[in-house]
Parts: sequence; structure tokens; C-alpha cells
Amino acid sequence: MNIIEKLRDIVGERASASPAERLCYSSDASQVRGTPDCVVRPLSTAEVSSVVELAAAEGVPVTARGAGTGLAGGAVPLRGGIVLDLSGMDRIVELDLSNLAVVVEPGVVQARLNERLRPRGFFFPPDPGSAAFCTIGGLIANNGSGMRSVKYGTTRNYVLDLEVVLADGSVVRTGSRTLKAAAGYDLTRLFIGSEGTLGIITQAVLRVAPLPKARRLVIAAFDSAEEAGRTVAATFAAGIVPSACEILDRTTVAVLRRCDPTLRLPDGDVLLFEVDGSEGAAAEAAAEIAALSSTTAASVAVVAGAEEMEEIWAARRLVGAAISRLDPAKSRIYVGEDVGVPIKEIPALIREVSEISDRFGIPAMKYGHIGDGNLHVALFIDVLDDGEWARLAGAADAIHRAAIRLGGTVSSEHGIGAARSEYMNEQLGSSALSVMRAIKGALDPRGIMNPGKLGLDDGPSPGGYG
Amino acid sequence: MNIIEKLRDIVGERASASPAERLCYSSDASQVRGTPDCVVRPLSTAEVSSVVELAAAEGVPVTARGAGTGLAGGAVPLRGGIVLDLSGMDRIVELDLSNLAVVVEPGVVQARLNERLRPRGFFFPPDPGSAAFCTIGGLIANNGSGMRSVKYGTTRNYVLDLEVVLADGSVVRTGSRTLKAAAGYDLTRLFIGSEGTLGIITQAVLRVAPLPKARRLVIAAFDSAEEAGRTVAATFAAGIVPSACEILDRTTVAVLRRCDPTLRLPDGDVLLFEVDGSEGAAAEAAAEIAALSSTTAASVAVVAGAEEMEEIWAARRLVGAAISRLDPAKSRIYVGEDVGVPIKEIPALIREVSEISDRFGIPAMKYGHIGDGNLHVALFIDVLDDGEWARLAGAADAIHRAAIRLGGTVSSEHGIGAARSEYMNEQLGSSALSVMRAIKGALDPRGIMNPGKLGLDDGPSPGGYG
Repeated sequence: MNIIEKLRDIVGERASASPAERLCYSSDASQVRGTPDCVVRPLSTAEVSSVVELAAAEGVPVTARGAGTGLAGGAVPLRGGIVLDLSGMDRIVELDLSNLAVVVEPGVVQARLNERLRPRGFFFPPDPGSAAFCTIGGLIANNGSGMRSVKYGTTRNYVLDLEVVLADGSVVRTGSRTLKAAAGYDLTRLFIGSEGTLGIITQAVLRVAPLPKARRLVIAAFDSAEEAGRTVAATFAAGIVPSACEILDRTTVAVLRRCDPTLRLPDGDVLLFEVDGSEGAAAEAAAEIAALSSTTAASVAVVAGAEEMEEIWAARRLVGAAISRLDPAKSRIYVGEDVGVPIKEIPALIREVSEISDRFGIPAMKYGHIGDGNLHVALFIDVLDDGEWARLAGAADAIHRAAIRLGGTVSSEHGIGAARSEYMNEQLGSSALSVMRAIKGALDPRGIMNPGKLGLDDGPSPGGYG
Repeated sequence: MNIIEKLRDIVGERASASPAERLCYSSDASQVRGTPDCVVRPLSTAEVSSVVELAAAEGVPVTARGAGTGLAGGAVPLRGGIVLDLSGMDRIVELDLSNLAVVVEPGVVQARLNERLRPRGFFFPPDPGSAAFCTIGGLIANNGSGMRSVKYGTTRNYVLDLEVVLADGSVVRTGSRTLKAAAGYDLTRLFIGSEGTLGIITQAVLRVAPLPKARRLVIAAFDSAEEAGRTVAATFAAGIVPSACEILDRTTVAVLRRCDPTLRLPDGDVLLFEVDGSEGAAAEAAAEIAALSSTTAASVAVVAGAEEMEEIWAARRLVGAAISRLDPAKSRIYVGEDVGVPIKEIPALIREVSEISDRFGIPAMKYGHIGDGNLHVALFIDVLDDGEWARLAGAADAIHRAAIRLGGTVSSEHGIGAARSEYMNEQLGSSALSVMRAIKGALDPRGIMNPGKLGLDDGPSPGGYG
């Protein structure tokens, strides 16, 4: 009996080895490619457990996948084997709001969860650009975050308990519904950000937060992105904590305006500061930020209207897609797109990225969660031009190395996957990578869980573009 | 050459095997006892590394110790060997406030750090009752927290990077100064709360927070502790997040009044809600909590004066010590003192603890960080009466089991150490404990790092009282 027949014994027709299905699951939103031998769509923890137990017995790789919105190849089965599509496990199991908790399956889409929470006065804060379609399981596996982590933190801060299927098919719970505990190793945080290399998340108890009563948006325009970066550092040094702090460089602003000429954004390199809280607190914090920015900004405005704020945030969320308007002959490729640095190095990072863009002749738009030190760099090429691909790879590599040199990270929120695995040794140091490998070896001795990722495997990195 | 001579080669006279020194290091603030073979007081990471390398070569246990304020025996060398007293590594290495970061050695006392930060407008939020003398290393090793974790989170939320000496003497860095990252396993969080069983923290980069501009204290008195517990659950369900939410049951209030007759606390079972933020936000949140509490409370008052607030918090911090005033013939013993439950189970926990206290005939005062679901139960006995010791052990055991049954934890913030290691299997489940043991085996294969703790060792628990 071959493996697909054994998988059918577990999940029936929800296992497939058809060439079309295999092709569909050979990519995510990155440039990484790898074709699975079969695709399984489990609907329960018991099914996931049985599939992993089978994979362990057969020595076959297992790669978990949510919505496939990842930008580093984390859900791409680099060594073949089984892709577990968890998007069908999409039940919101319980709203336990008197414990500030919700229980969800991994396939729940972030926005669906927040639609359920909003009328009850709560929200799940991690808010990536892909919130409308990404799954909670993927957010947890990558420690995703987004616009509001400046104040609210990343996914790491909102997981109370996980149910995880381990590499032998056994099922473990990592936490509880208590809000704090000091009782053993923090297994919950160990699985968060482990990108499916230690186990497969089949249920999560999330902490939720009360919706703020009021928000304000401060829009400040500067003569240079570096000046904007210096203002971010000054704001934090003054002890102000906005709920979001985004940068849109002048090219990004121009692109957004081309998409929507009515959009009320000023000329220049723009910072968007959101503050939230009670009516009074939000107004007060907005005034404080406006006053501080006005010493360096060309213009400052405070937006209080919910509709106008929502228009600007909606436009901000579209940046990734809108960028194609810059030059119809060019496409944005997601490489070197998620670097981060300590706050005071933001101006230096912006300067270095501009220099790298010039040096390699690859246009770069800069935007992102600058309040976390996280800069999204959008690089564009003509995808039919092989020379541009080579220069793109050089530029992305230089951006990654600049971030590391500035004491930063090659990934603030998108993850390492295969696309950035070659940097793990330089990023973490060989000692930390050895500790990761020791943990990996202890929990997945046969190496079947999402192999080829996070720089865990010995030998040259299997990553690469194209 | 015996081991003490080899240790003297590394640290000179700062290594000792004198009986007096060994006795001094045979206990912490718990009932757990264990005598080391020698005591070493390192002053640098290099010294710690050399000592651990020697211990690994000789197969000798190593137990790290800060101020010895632990309540679970975490710093007690249960299997002898070397105690590493890190209190001499007490330098605040760097204030890097434009990155919202500070760099400290593990022996820095929490209050000393906050004294340095306060004039600059920042603070390190984790605020245990022992803040005046406990060390940052111990806070990290136990994931300590205290009064303000309701809003600010636990130590886990304030560590950006650790330098750790591993079981073979090698040195690893776990993070960076970036505020967020998605680049590999969360080794920082793995070491936080690991109680010295995976490695020894020799330096930490901490995130700090801006000091709030204003605070208010709402004092609400209730006819029963259960009614107070229900009000806590209702407050959170209404989406209000205070910066602290403490309970003082009527016995605790009476004891505090006996210590300081001028203390302005009402009769009854009392909740203290602290709120913070801007002037306007603090006043608004205080009014909201006062309104909500007034539907169930016998009395509600809002305190705005900094001095009066400080008096009440200072009294609250003294509860642990003040309790001896209840009956001079009795002593408080720290067992069963740190249970926690999900918020909506708080009334049930309070009821069960009262029943257990009655059933075993051991008086119990109840106070603590009730906004986290964390109840500190103070049990008293006549220490000269063997029968009371036995009843005490029974009561503590029943309290621990009640917390687990309610979906809670045997330790919210004090740690497991040896005192609670017997509950780890029931608390975590055998799968999670197996995962912990696998990680322990991978990082400390010879089992020299603080053996006998956290339920990690096979066989019967070595813990126990007396």
C-alpha cells in the first residue's frame, strides 16, 4: 500500500496526489518553490495526529500550510512529502471573553476573528497587511504582527495556550487560560515563530484586548525619509508610545496618490502616527506627537474622523499591491523586504537602503512599521530581464547584511522560511543556531517537520530565488 | 587537585568551601534546604563560563543564585555541587533609552534599576513584592511579575536579549536590541522561567517603558471576598484594563491596620484598582471602575494624591511581613502561596481556599494580584507543633490541586523550584513534561544545571517541607 492510500484511510478524498493539486501547493507568496508528493486537508486534530504518525513511520516530510500568504517560503515543501492544508480547520471554537480569551482552530482567518470580536467590544491586536486572508495558525507559526505592535506587541503576546501535534503524532498542550504563569519552560513561545519545524498547531487559546474608545491619526510630512526616521527615534525617546507608527516614503505616497487621486496625504516622506485610548487620552497624545513632530516636519495634521482615518489605513494596506502602478513594466519581488533595526538606527537603515538601491540600479520604495524599527523595502524589476534578477539578489543580500550590521534582523515579522535561511548563522551566531539545532533534534529526531527551513539543516542553504 | 583548588584558579578567594559559607547558601526564602559543596562569587561572564566548563568536566551540579528571595527553592542546591552567587555581577552596563533598552548584569537589584530610570522618565515594569532586594537575574529565571502585570505583562515581555552560559560553558546570545523579530526559535523566552536548569544568565538587555504621567487608585470594599472576586471578573468583561488590581481580604486589612492604625483602608474585603496614563485618561478610567464597582461594593473611594497612594501601596508590599502580627505565636510559611486561575474562576478559588483553610484548621489570609487571577494565600502555623506542619502540608496540597482543577496554575509568579515540582506532571500533562525533558536533555545532557527542579528529573520528586 503506498502512502496516498494510507492517507486516504485517514482523511478519505481529502488526500490527493494529483499533479494539479501538487502544483497548487508548490508555492506561497514568495519566490520559493517546492512540490509536495501529496496534499492532505485535515479537519481535526485527530486527523493531523494520524497523518503525522504515518509520516513519521514512513520518514516522509510534513509541511503545514494556512492561507499561503507567507513571504519566505515557510509553507513550501522544499523536500517534497506531505503538505497539510489546515485552512479547513477554521472554527472559532469558543468566545470566553470573561477570561479575555478565545479558542480557535489554526485555519481561522484573522479578519473573521476580529469581525466576531468587534461587536463584543474586543479585538485580537496582531494586524498584518494580509489580515483579510491570512490564518491565525500562520500568524502564530511566524510570530506575525503588523501595524499595531508598537503598542500592543506581536502575536507572541496574545497566545495563552496551544495544542500542538508533535513529530511522532502525539498531542501536547503548552499552556492554560490563566493570564500569567511561572510553571515550567515556556513551550507556548517556543512553538510561536518555529515555522512548523517543531510541531503543527491544531488549536490556540488567544488573549484578546478591549477595543479602544477613540483613535487619532497624526500625519507628518518631512523633507527626507532620514529626517522622518530621526523624528521616530525622538518620539520614543520622549516616552510617547503610539498604537501605530508607519512610514511612507515619497515614492510610496506618489504611488498611493496615483491609485486614488482624492487621497488626503501630503507631499514628502510621511509618518503616520496612530494613538488610541479614551477620547481625552487620544486627543492629548495626538497633540503631543504633533507638537514634537512640528519642530522637524514640513507639515503636520491631526485626523479625528473615523472615516478619513480608515481611508488612509486602507490605502496603507494596499501599498504592497499598489506598487505595481509605479511602472507597469516592472514587478515587485518580495526579497529583502522585512528588515528591522533598533529604533535609533532607523535613519542609518533608510540611508543605507537608498544607497544600495542606487548602487544596484534597482528602484526601492520604503514603507512599513517604522515604530518597531521595521522597514518594508519594495524592490522592482523587469522579470523578463535575467540581469535584473541577479542585481535584485545582490541588492536584497546587501539590505539583509546592512540590517545585521546595524544590530538588526533580516526579518521583523515575515519569518525566515527558506528565503532567508542562509543568514541565520550570521544573524544569530553559531552558538544560538546550535541551540536551535539541538532543540530541533530533540523534538524532531528524524527531521520530518518542514525540513530545509530556518537554517536548521546542515550543509548549504537550499534557499534561493527563481 | 580537588575542585575547590581548581575553582580558586578561576576566581581566587571568591571560591569557598567553608562550612559557614556552605550553610549560608543552603536555603532561600522557602522551606527547601540543600547544602552546596562550594560557593563561587563570579564577577564576569568569562568566570561563569570557566566555572561551568569545570563543573561539566567534573560532572558537578551548578546552581545559580541572585538575592535568594525565591519562594520555591529554585536557588537551593538540592544535589550539592557549586552555588554561583551572581549578586556581585551588579553593573548597570548601559542606559540605551533611545532604543527603549537597558543592559544589565544579573545581580542588579530591581529597585536600583528603577532608581536610575525614574529621573529619565522610564521604568522597568515587573514589580514583585521583593523589588527592593530581588535581582533581575532571578526575576528573569522565574518570569517574575508582581503588581502591574495586569496592564504591563510579566518579565517575559521586557527582555530583548540574554547572554547565557550553557551547560558546556559556551556563551550564547539569544536576541538583539530590535523591538520585534521573526527570525528563529524564541530562545530568549525559553531561558526566561527556566530557573537555571538550561543555562546561567550573565547579561540581559531589557525593554523599558515610559513612566505614566498620572495614576489613580480606586478602593472598593465588599461584604465578601467572593463578591470582590466577581467584581474583578465583571471589570475585565467590561473591557477595562487597570494597571494593578489587588485584593486584600478582611483579615489582611485588619493586620495592616494593626501595623499602622492611621492607614486609610475601609472595613471589609478590599479591592485596590490602580489606573495610569495621562491625567485625563487616569481620571476617566478611575471614574469608570468606581461606577462599575459601586453596584456591588459596600463603599468606593478614589484616591488621587500621590502620597496617600504611596502609603497604601507601601502597606500592601508589607503584607507578607506584617502578617506575623496576626498571632505572635504563629509564623507564616510560604507553601501553596502562589496559585492562579482564569479570571472567571476567581470567586470559586477564593471559596475553595476558605473551605480548605477551615477543613485543615490552618488560618489563611488571602491577598494578591487578583487581576491576573493570582491569589497569594498566607497560611500560619505554630512551627513548634509537628501536627500543624502536617496539616499545613495537607492544606497547601489541597490549594494546589484546587487551582489545577479550576484550569489554573500552582505558580503564577514565584516559580516551581523544588517546592512545587511534584505537581508538574498533573499541571502540564505528561506530554508537555516530556517535551520539557527532551529540551533539558538536549541542552544539558549531563544534568548538571540546577538538578532536582521543575519536575525534570525522573523518579520521585525530591521536594518537601521542613
